[in-house]
Amino acid sequence: MRPSGRAPDEMRPISIETGYTKHAEGSCLISFGDTKVLCTASVEDRLPPWLRGKGQGWVTGEYSMLPRATHTRGSREAARGKQSGRTQEIQRLIGRSLRAVVDMKALGEHQITLDCDVIQADGGTRTASISGAWVALRLAVNGLLKSGAIASDPITAKIAAVSCGIYNGTPVLDLDYDEDSSADADANFVLIEGGQIAEVQATAEGATYDEEGLMRLLRLAQMGCADIFKAQDKAIG
Amino acid sequence: MRPSGRAPDEMRPISIETGYTKHAEGSCLISFGDTKVLCTASVEDRLPPWLRGKGQGWVTGEYSMLPRATHTRGSREAARGKQSGRTQEIQRLIGRSLRAVVDMKALGEHQITLDCDVIQADGGTRTASISGAWVALRLAVNGLLKSGAIASDPITAKIAAVSCGIYNGTPVLDLDYDEDSSADADANFVLIEGGQIAEVQATAEGATYDEEGLMRLLRLAQMGCADIFKAQDKAIG
Amino acid sequence: MRPSGRAPDEMRPISIETGYTKHAEGSCLISFGDTKVLCTASVEDRLPPWLRGKGQGWVTGEYSMLPRATHTRGSREAARGKQSGRTQEIQRLIGRSLRAVVDMKALGEHQITLDCDVIQADGGTRTASISGAWVALRLAVNGLLKSGAIASDPITAKIAAVSCGIYNGTPVLDLDYDEDSSADADANFVLIEGGQIAEVQATAEGATYDEEGLMRLLRLAQMGCADIFKAQDKAIG
Amino acid sequence: MRPSGRAPDEMRPISIETGYTKHAEGSCLISFGDTKVLCTASVEDRLPPWLRGKGQGWVTGEYSMLPRATHTRGSREAARGKQSGRTQEIQRLIGRSLRAVVDMKALGEHQITLDCDVIQADGGTRTASISGAWVALRLAVNGLLKSGAIASDPITAKIAAVSCGIYNGTPVLDLDYDEDSSADADANFVLIEGGQIAEVQATAEGATYDEEGLMRLLRLAQMGCADIFKAQDKAIG
Amino acid sequence: MRPSGRAPDEMRPISIETGYTKHAEGSCLISFGDTKVLCTASVEDRLPPWLRGKGQGWVTGEYSMLPRATHTRGSREAARGKQSGRTQEIQRLIGRSLRAVVDMKALGEHQITLDCDVIQADGGTRTASISGAWVALRLAVNGLLKSGAIASDPITAKIAAVSCGIYNGTPVLDLDYDEDSSADADANFVLIEGGQIAEVQATAEGATYDEEGLMRLLRLAQMGCADIFKAQDKAIG
Amino acid sequence: MRPSGRAPDEMRPISIETGYTKHAEGSCLISFGDTKVLCTASVEDRLPPWLRGKGQGWVTGEYSMLPRATHTRGSREAARGKQSGRTQEIQRLIGRSLRAVVDMKALGEHQITLDCDVIQADGGTRTASISGAWVALRLAVNGLLKSGAIASDPITAKIAAVSCGIYNGTPVLDLDYDEDSSADADANFVLIEGGQIAEVQATAEGATYDEEGLMRLLRLAQMGCADIFKAQDKAIG
Repeated sequence: MRPSGRAPDEMRPISIETGYTKHAEGSCLISFGDTKVLCTASVEDRLPPWLRGKGQGWVTGEYSMLPRATHTRGSREAARGKQSGRTQEIQRLIGRSLRAVVDMKALGEHQITLDCDVIQADGGTRTASISGAWVALRLAVNGLLKSGAIASDPITAKIAAVSCGIYNGTPVLDLDYDEDSSADADANFVLIEGGQIAEVQATAEGATYDEEGLMRLLRLAQMGCADIFKAQDKAIG
Repeated sequence: MRPSGRAPDEMRPISIETGYTKHAEGSCLISFGDTKVLCTASVEDRLPPWLRGKGQGWVTGEYSMLPRATHTRGSREAARGKQSGRTQEIQRLIGRSLRAVVDMKALGEHQITLDCDVIQADGGTRTASISGAWVALRLAVNGLLKSGAIASDPITAKIAAVSCGIYNGTPVLDLDYDEDSSADADANFVLIEGGQIAEVQATAEGATYDEEGLMRLLRLAQMGCADIFKAQDKAIG
Repeated sequence: MRPSGRAPDEMRPISIETGYTKHAEGSCLISFGDTKVLCTASVEDRLPPWLRGKGQGWVTGEYSMLPRATHTRGSREAARGKQSGRTQEIQRLIGRSLRAVVDMKALGEHQITLDCDVIQADGGTRTASISGAWVALRLAVNGLLKSGAIASDPITAKIAAVSCGIYNGTPVLDLDYDEDSSADADANFVLIEGGQIAEVQATAEGATYDEEGLMRLLRLAQMGCADIFKAQDKAIG
Repeated sequence: MRPSGRAPDEMRPISIETGYTKHAEGSCLISFGDTKVLCTASVEDRLPPWLRGKGQGWVTGEYSMLPRATHTRGSREAARGKQSGRTQEIQRLIGRSLRAVVDMKALGEHQITLDCDVIQADGGTRTASISGAWVALRLAVNGLLKSGAIASDPITAKIAAVSCGIYNGTPVLDLDYDEDSSADADANFVLIEGGQIAEVQATAEGATYDEEGLMRLLRLAQMGCADIFKAQDKAIG
Repeated sequence: MRPSGRAPDEMRPISIETGYTKHAEGSCLISFGDTKVLCTASVEDRLPPWLRGKGQGWVTGEYSMLPRATHTRGSREAARGKQSGRTQEIQRLIGRSLRAVVDMKALGEHQITLDCDVIQADGGTRTASISGAWVALRLAVNGLLKSGAIASDPITAKIAAVSCGIYNGTPVLDLDYDEDSSADADANFVLIEGGQIAEVQATAEGATYDEEGLMRLLRLAQMGCADIFKAQDKAIG
Repeated sequence: MRPSGRAPDEMRPISIETGYTKHAEGSCLISFGDTKVLCTASVEDRLPPWLRGKGQGWVTGEYSMLPRATHTRGSREAARGKQSGRTQEIQRLIGRSLRAVVDMKALGEHQITLDCDVIQADGGTRTASISGAWVALRLAVNGLLKSGAIASDPITAKIAAVSCGIYNGTPVLDLDYDEDSSADADANFVLIEGGQIAEVQATAEGATYDEEGLMRLLRLAQMGCADIFKAQDKAIG
């Protein structure tokens, strides 16, 4: 029995509120239940040095938790003077995932930064970030297409992410904080609409799982991402 | 004529939405027009070393802008590895201001951290932060009183802040970004309900003002803060 | 009664010794009683990136306390690896204040850095820094005029600063350390010769003051700055 | 055809030279072909603060590349003043993996740090690190058992890691640098002797893979790890 | 011929002004010609962790250049966020040198920090620092003896330092900036009154010297230190 | 009697294994007994800014200890976020020493970085580093000559370094860890084949030495370096 009373293959309610901030070229507030992440897409003409003059663009991600997004207050990374290993790992994942569905040549010499700032955390912040970042990216690219800054759509597919885990011996979809903190295994899947996998990060600290277990988690993730793709569709309109 | 069409002594609409995040002991999203700041109050039993065992509490503030709160994306302070001078100046001001209306003995051995994170910026982020932080503090202290953690109310008064400036030669209240970036003088006032001043920071870079000008700005601020005190009352209910 | 036996409107003795170091384009050791600050002006042709090629100059300030300028030794900021919020706040104030009396077009493409290093501290180090920095700046600009590097004088007025506060209920001028550490309110005024105000920073932590109190502090500051302007005149000769 | 001429399911030669340094409680130089990593295990009685007095131990990992381990010299992280996101990600993986096969209660109040320093890199440095770290850990724990510092063996199983990828459309085992830099997908598997999975990190940047692809990579990894388990056995003797 | 017209074995004028700052337990401004260093000795009861409870004291040194001590302005180490290798090398030398003449048991559980801040630089700042630090230390220790905080004198001898070098083929004493920047070899000697050597740092970048050269430089240093010992005597009175 | 049983003027066995890593333009593993240092020379066309376009090259050094090179594990400098003063002092010495035997004009616009990473430490790591760095440099320069990148040999002589000290009152050559940690004086000599001195760093912390003592240490160093020059010759072949 899950603490939230959800069925093993049941996602939390997904909501995506677009246009959450007025300055960003694309933005949304995405919620997976009580997990809320503000995702913004910022378009700049300034590329990283190693890409200048190559006729292509770049997509990168940044991630942060507000200090009191969590049960107890965490110290501010800016005050500590560095980003944690966890933060860096997550923002590398966000950037890598979104790049998997962007044709950099078609994007032209633009850099799009996807900022994912967690307003409230209840498990699954990295997967909500990726799923919301795609919406912000879609909106920003729509603007580039509309203004004529780029000629053809560089986005090749939808992408979404969800966490799954083994909780009390049962594979479950979309772990919340209570489950995440006591799960035997924790896996994040980044999936592309149509059945392809962009990334799997499946970890067992203490307990472990076998080939069969991995397959069952992947299938739950496919169900969850189907829901997220629908929510993305609805948000974009 | 102000770019927004407001009268010289007209505040932007103020809104304060309490309970914006579920984990913080007190929280609100305060808006001065398009400026939106998430203020949370976190209560901890851990005091700074120099206050331990003295039978008193502490109130401190932290401040940050989300990278895309502004017209163009700013780099993340956590990524740069340090907080800017501006950030530090503002968070010192927030802490100092709120401490002006708290009796540290009555607070007992609790530390309350007021986190002010700017979601969207359109001028006046530090004054909105102080005004919203008071609401978050009030809510957190109400919780401490209700639970019996403290016996008497340590908050001695309401406090609010507003910016004023001289725009095209005219003193105006509550500068927005368009005004702020071209004002001749810029003054932030932190005022206590009842007529006392907690802090004045009045700056002229290039242009200057005289004693008369300072008084006119102060009177505008008194008008603005009267409105904010009403909004605080309404938010607390 | 003030600890020093001074009258409420009495400055400490001011002395300004010019040419204190041989390498700087302008320098002085300024003393407000036992507070001693070495101010140097360094002229460079290298401008900050955002000003290059705009036909104008820049004036900036830096501030530091020697570790044993104070009663007890403070750790060295270079060893700690960052400047404190207080240091950054003060050096931003120094730069902003001096820029208020410099015509950047007339200065041409030169940057002048005003380094204020506190040799001995007894209250009022930031106001002594600003007052001394003006002398160092004046001497450096005199050199530029003499050598023909610039054609017309970019300095538009004298500027000086002094602290005032409410000590045991009485407004007093030029707080020394004993007063500063127990004052009810503390205000720093940066004034321009002729009656204009460049900056007010008036703070009450715990106690507060009203409009009348602010005016009385401002008038004390005007008296104090009149003395500093005379000392600046005498130093420049 | 692989650049090295290897069959798709062929590992590079594995060698493990134990006792490579005299000070460490356990050490080895592990080679996967031209990739060479020095792994040391250091036993200390000092635990991280959150574990003190709980009657259990801790295992953690650190990772670094020597500046000229690679084709072109990389700048030294100590000189840059921080560890890269990649480094932090890898060392978190090393610690997590090894903890999956250690019973922390049986380890008692000891901390074992596994330092993995890459002497020469040719792809697969993180998987060689994990595989070698297990050997260093085994040797260090043998010492603790022999000296009587701990009573029962805290190591529950062997663990090994290997990378697989899709190269020119074909799933291949144990990518070297030439393959790694042009592979369509890259997956690191950390496997436990007996068939359990400790960690999967499978990434597609640009290209993607499906469920079938993931399974094929996992089976290659199982073959590779079988070889590594044998090499570990032989090294331990 | 030396740029200054001095004879090869001629020191610049040495002056030592004691009591230069009022807060430090010992202080002096030492000048070797135009090189001026403020040396302060601060006595604290707080020892470094590794010495606590061992019934002995510690002496350490810190060193810094004011930004405009030199011909062209150097950036502030506190602003850059770290101390240069040169600064660290010098402050390690200062501490090591002074410890060579202090009996740590006799000092008791006190730490004395010798801060050497270069007000104006014209070559030989590290040697002036050591020579002046001894005077500041002597004054601080005199205070401890007078107050009864320690019973017997922990200072075992005088110590002084001077630089020598080979300039245009001739060994010369007490290099000034003009000589230092073009010398073939540069050697700093730290000598103890009575003929013992505490430290030699002799460097040749480009040119070199032989055993005979080293001896000639040492003998010049012995002459220079004899003068410094006299100046120390006179300063202490 | 020395702990190792060596005669006072007896070096530990020296071994130099060239070509230790495949990527570096020159490399060796040098051992002085149990002290083992990996030295690599990396050739780059990128020069430091102040040398660009001057028709000359540059040689620089970097130094690090692996965390478990020593008896007890030292924390990683990259994790601490800065290099220690000791590390910086040593790497400055390595660079300066090697530059003493390179004609920068003949080197042309190439930068050679000598990385010295201590694999195992038993005293004398900096002197082994310098001695091994010369071999790595020699191999890298041979490559430049062979490829025609430079026309004439920029290396003007062999250079080697060794430590000496006074142990139990007796001057001894090539201190190992046991001697180093209890020696009365410690001196590092960097000598050039043919009798010239590049650098002397002789320190007495606590005990001291006189002119005669310095000479005896220098003569021991000359004997030790003669052995190292032979080993370098043999390694280069």
